[in-house]
Amino acid sequence: MGKDSKIHNDELYAMRHSLAHIMASAVISLWPEAKLGVGPVIENGFYYDIDLKDKTISEDDFSRIQAEMKKIIKENQPFEHSEESIDAGIAWAKKTKQPYKEELLNDLKREGTTLASELDASMMGLPAGISGATSAKAEVGKVSFYKNGDFIDLCRGPHVESTGKVGAFKLTRVAGAYWRGNEKNPQMQRLYGVAFATKEELNKYLQLLEEAKKRDHRKLGKELDLFVISDLVGSGLPLFTPKGAVLRKQLVDFSEELQENNGYQRVFIPHITKEELYKKSGHWDKFGDELFLVKSQETSDKFVLKPMNCPHHIQIYASNPRSYKDLPIRYMESTVQYRDEKSGELHGLSRVRAISIDDSHGFWTEEDIVIESKAVIQMVKDMYKALGMEFYARLSYRDDSEGYLGDKKLWQTAESILAATAESEKLDFIEERGEAAFYGPKIDFMVKDSLGREWQCATIQLDFVQPQRFELSYVDSNGAEKRPVMIHKALLGSLERFLSVYIEHTAGRFPVWLAPEQMRIITVNQEKNTTDFAADILSKAKEMGIRAQIDNDNESVGKKIRKAEVLKVPYTLVIGEKEIESGTTVPRIRADIVVQDGSKPHKIEEFLKTVSNEAKSRVTKTSL
Amino acid sequence: MGKDSKIHNDELYAMRHSLAHIMASAVISLWPEAKLGVGPVIENGFYYDIDLKDKTISEDDFSRIQAEMKKIIKENQPFEHSEESIDAGIAWAKKTKQPYKEELLNDLKREGTTLASELDASMMGLPAGISGATSAKAEVGKVSFYKNGDFIDLCRGPHVESTGKVGAFKLTRVAGAYWRGNEKNPQMQRLYGVAFATKEELNKYLQLLEEAKKRDHRKLGKELDLFVISDLVGSGLPLFTPKGAVLRKQLVDFSEELQENNGYQRVFIPHITKEELYKKSGHWDKFGDELFLVKSQETSDKFVLKPMNCPHHIQIYASNPRSYKDLPIRYMESTVQYRDEKSGELHGLSRVRAISIDDSHGFWTEEDIVIESKAVIQMVKDMYKALGMEFYARLSYRDDSEGYLGDKKLWQTAESILAATAESEKLDFIEERGEAAFYGPKIDFMVKDSLGREWQCATIQLDFVQPQRFELSYVDSNGAEKRPVMIHKALLGSLERFLSVYIEHTAGRFPVWLAPEQMRIITVNQEKNTTDFAADILSKAKEMGIRAQIDNDNESVGKKIRKAEVLKVPYTLVIGEKEIESGTTVPRIRADIVVQDGSKPHKIEEFLKTVSNEAKSRVTKTSL
Repeated sequence: MGKDSKIHNDELYAMRHSLAHIMASAVISLWPEAKLGVGPVIENGFYYDIDLKDKTISEDDFSRIQAEMKKIIKENQPFEHSEESIDAGIAWAKKTKQPYKEELLNDLKREGTTLASELDASMMGLPAGISGATSAKAEVGKVSFYKNGDFIDLCRGPHVESTGKVGAFKLTRVAGAYWRGNEKNPQMQRLYGVAFATKEELNKYLQLLEEAKKRDHRKLGKELDLFVISDLVGSGLPLFTPKGAVLRKQLVDFSEELQENNGYQRVFIPHITKEELYKKSGHWDKFGDELFLVKSQETSDKFVLKPMNCPHHIQIYASNPRSYKDLPIRYMESTVQYRDEKSGELHGLSRVRAISIDDSHGFWTEEDIVIESKAVIQMVKDMYKALGMEFYARLSYRDDSEGYLGDKKLWQTAESILAATAESEKLDFIEERGEAAFYGPKIDFMVKDSLGREWQCATIQLDFVQPQRFELSYVDSNGAEKRPVMIHKALLGSLERFLSVYIEHTAGRFPVWLAPEQMRIITVNQEKNTTDFAADILSKAKEMGIRAQIDNDNESVGKKIRKAEVLKVPYTLVIGEKEIESGTTVPRIRADIVVQDGSKPHKIEEFLKTVSNEAKSRVTKTSL
Repeated sequence: MGKDSKIHNDELYAMRHSLAHIMASAVISLWPEAKLGVGPVIENGFYYDIDLKDKTISEDDFSRIQAEMKKIIKENQPFEHSEESIDAGIAWAKKTKQPYKEELLNDLKREGTTLASELDASMMGLPAGISGATSAKAEVGKVSFYKNGDFIDLCRGPHVESTGKVGAFKLTRVAGAYWRGNEKNPQMQRLYGVAFATKEELNKYLQLLEEAKKRDHRKLGKELDLFVISDLVGSGLPLFTPKGAVLRKQLVDFSEELQENNGYQRVFIPHITKEELYKKSGHWDKFGDELFLVKSQETSDKFVLKPMNCPHHIQIYASNPRSYKDLPIRYMESTVQYRDEKSGELHGLSRVRAISIDDSHGFWTEEDIVIESKAVIQMVKDMYKALGMEFYARLSYRDDSEGYLGDKKLWQTAESILAATAESEKLDFIEERGEAAFYGPKIDFMVKDSLGREWQCATIQLDFVQPQRFELSYVDSNGAEKRPVMIHKALLGSLERFLSVYIEHTAGRFPVWLAPEQMRIITVNQEKNTTDFAADILSKAKEMGIRAQIDNDNESVGKKIRKAEVLKVPYTLVIGEKEIESGTTVPRIRADIVVQDGSKPHKIEEFLKTVSNEAKSRVTKTSL
């Protein structure tokens, strides 16, 4: 959210928004019949929805449009602001033959703010005239316009002073988009651009885009044979190959090891459950259409694929009376929750229908919050250190608005404990009021990848509401019945989404502890003493727990080395006469791995030990 | 099946069946208005379905009925056989006012053999007159009767010579049952008895029944806090507590370890999948009403909860071209498959709706069958040795009937390989023709529990059909395209069902490697040096991987020991002054565990090492 508000408020926002106007006016001057939809600012740039009837804009048109935009920029036209009544606005739209603007203004006249906020939510920004008309800043019943050159657009602003002050930009792509996101409406062409304050920043971003394309986890997933999307199984339902399953298992094992060391206990719950549970928990209302309904043909029971695991873990807690001596109780489970996403929203591992999560639920007394939160923060640190990723924390608190449930004093206590703990644990953190969940304050851990992108992964959320709904209790040391605080926590979060991030973060160059294949042994020939020697190394490596393989194919060593490189195997041992005689090797080390004495010969057994230790200690030696 | 056919053929069968007649005639003499349904032999005994209109038989009536039966037995009435035409049979039924018999005979007259086999299948035996009428032994168009005293019943036999020769019996229970299993039909009372050749055998069986009741896994599951059935989640959908989850994890880890050592690789698949996959695999037709259908609210895709895992693992195999050098490929996954059971059929962990399974699928060349089957047999041996259970193998082959798919020569080869392997691996095995799956021969491993019951757990099944349906292939060393053989294998099978068996087999006295809590440390007082010493033992135990707990409650030592006994904790250390001074302990050892020098003092650290080694080596020292 921090990022979002930044986009909306600062100078860069004004530049990007001004560029949307400039692009629209360029399109109008090239194709005067163009009908304009909305043109908001988005992350890293802007777009405009345009209806051009028979003309389809292609990338071939980009240079013409850009040339026209540059002309406007060179003219340094001032952006002039004015306000009109809605009716005057409608008359303007009629006169200029802009039916989409006219429709927006008519809706605004009829429905007022409701429409505006609906549009705001569904379109990530909109011609600001609309919400401007209903915002505190503009006069009620009025809409605001901006004009540059001959081009006038319904718009709240803000804009830069004049078209010369828009920084550097580039048109990037064009895609189909239904007017107002509704497939019953006409299809328009959405023209995208990216923009930054300086040429250097733009170029850096374009390079990142290029790099991100190369690292696309869907592409790498195929090249490295990590997962499979099958038409017969369905999209959003990836199947993990043996190599992908190694990644999953290593991650989950580490997460569970961290948790086990902190007193978390495994539990196991079914993936389907009667509707009643979610009606009681509130998830039935919350998830609505996103629930997968399960029809039993044999019974009248109505089931749902679980959208969350908390109500189930609550059933286990509630199955026995609990005493303060039992608390904190900490259940963990790496399991799957389901979200019925629209097909169009599915994307590789980033957005799936079956979401694996290293979930956990704690039942704490109020007194436990300090020490338990501390433990969680330490686990998050350990996890992302092993992964070689940096993060900062976002502490999300309530504000004074309605809708937050639970005792206000408990909120305050909890919030100040979270802040104090973040402080004492030396977290890099920000605090945001009004960002809490309705059921309690939380810390979201924002992980930064090597392309500078930020992802919310780990989370710890206090929940004052579900213990109440399910009437959970424990008996305190005075024999009084008390309500425990419930805590939702994940270290990796969605495993699929984390993998999509991590594959792109590392470009598939996984640290040794995660690499599906950690070592490859390449024979220079197929003679018996070579293959025997290689087999001996393999069995020693396996004994040490190294995931190793032999390539004894009848191919050139060069080709075999390239195969290992394509698969980004961290260590490759080439075995020929010299190695057999000396019992030493100069290992081939993946370029990103920083190793001292990498180019010197190592006793083979010593080297195996080094690799085994590197894996066991889960260090990330890569420089990405 | 071996057992079943035994029931049907031998002397004991005739005794039990004769007792069904004797019970029916006793009921008729007590309540002459009784209408009789069917009265087959079942495992360990017999039952008869009786319609008594307003009279409800209760256990209080058992002594009267048994007294009447004993009278008949004492009279030693001969069983007399006769044959009549179907019409004469119908006339008899009318005359004796036995409408159910009349209905059966009318159906038989109308539909012939079809009806007979339908009944045979649905009722596990039926008044044998019916199928007798259509069997080779009886004349076509005739039905057979047996008479003892004044009582005549439609029946194929065989019977014992006279009512005096029926061995020992006891009525055990009465339950409601719909006529012909159809809930639209009248409800009858099903009166059950058990019967054996001798009084001794009967008593032994009754003791076993009593013991089985004590060991009921649902009862023990609650007492030992292993799993929870929640009304809000639904029946057939158990949730596993931390203790139950330890059992699951230990079992699955061992299964996967055995498999990993034999080259099996983990994969991971989603639990929901498009219908299309199962239509292609054939499971759509096979499972029909037992499939859970999943309704997406967001897309038009139709999903199903997976009834089997094979088609998914096939998708992974099929995602890349395979060469003979890659084979055998062995995928393993401990995952869940779903069966939409009728609510009435659900029973604790024995029969559930979400079935966890340590599943695996191999893709082998024909040449792999020998060595790979051998490896599987060895895994099964290792598994059940660690569990302290004996088993025998049932080799199931095809016969000459229709319906078996795949190349006949391949079947023959595979069957003789399975037999030779069972022989060379010194398996205790039986061979049964006509018991194979339609898609290939198999070995089912029948595990015997401590109550003498047999359970099919592990299995290895060859499959010639699915590789064909999915057009799987590999390239052999000559570059020719070949079809792999697919192998379904499980070591534990349904984890829930296995646990239900194992909890009852051990009465919850799990071997140390499986025990959720392996050691309990009991303090004799709450003084600092005692609690410190106990805490030190706990931390040493935990370091060695022992699942240990301290009971430092302010209660008597006796009470604390009893608590540990109720939870069937294998080892308990009582820590008082003597232990602190000497650093030694005389551990309390669960009665069933056979330990040398159990009653001598042990150095505490030495003892911890012993326990840790016992757990790690997965020995079962219990004598059940």
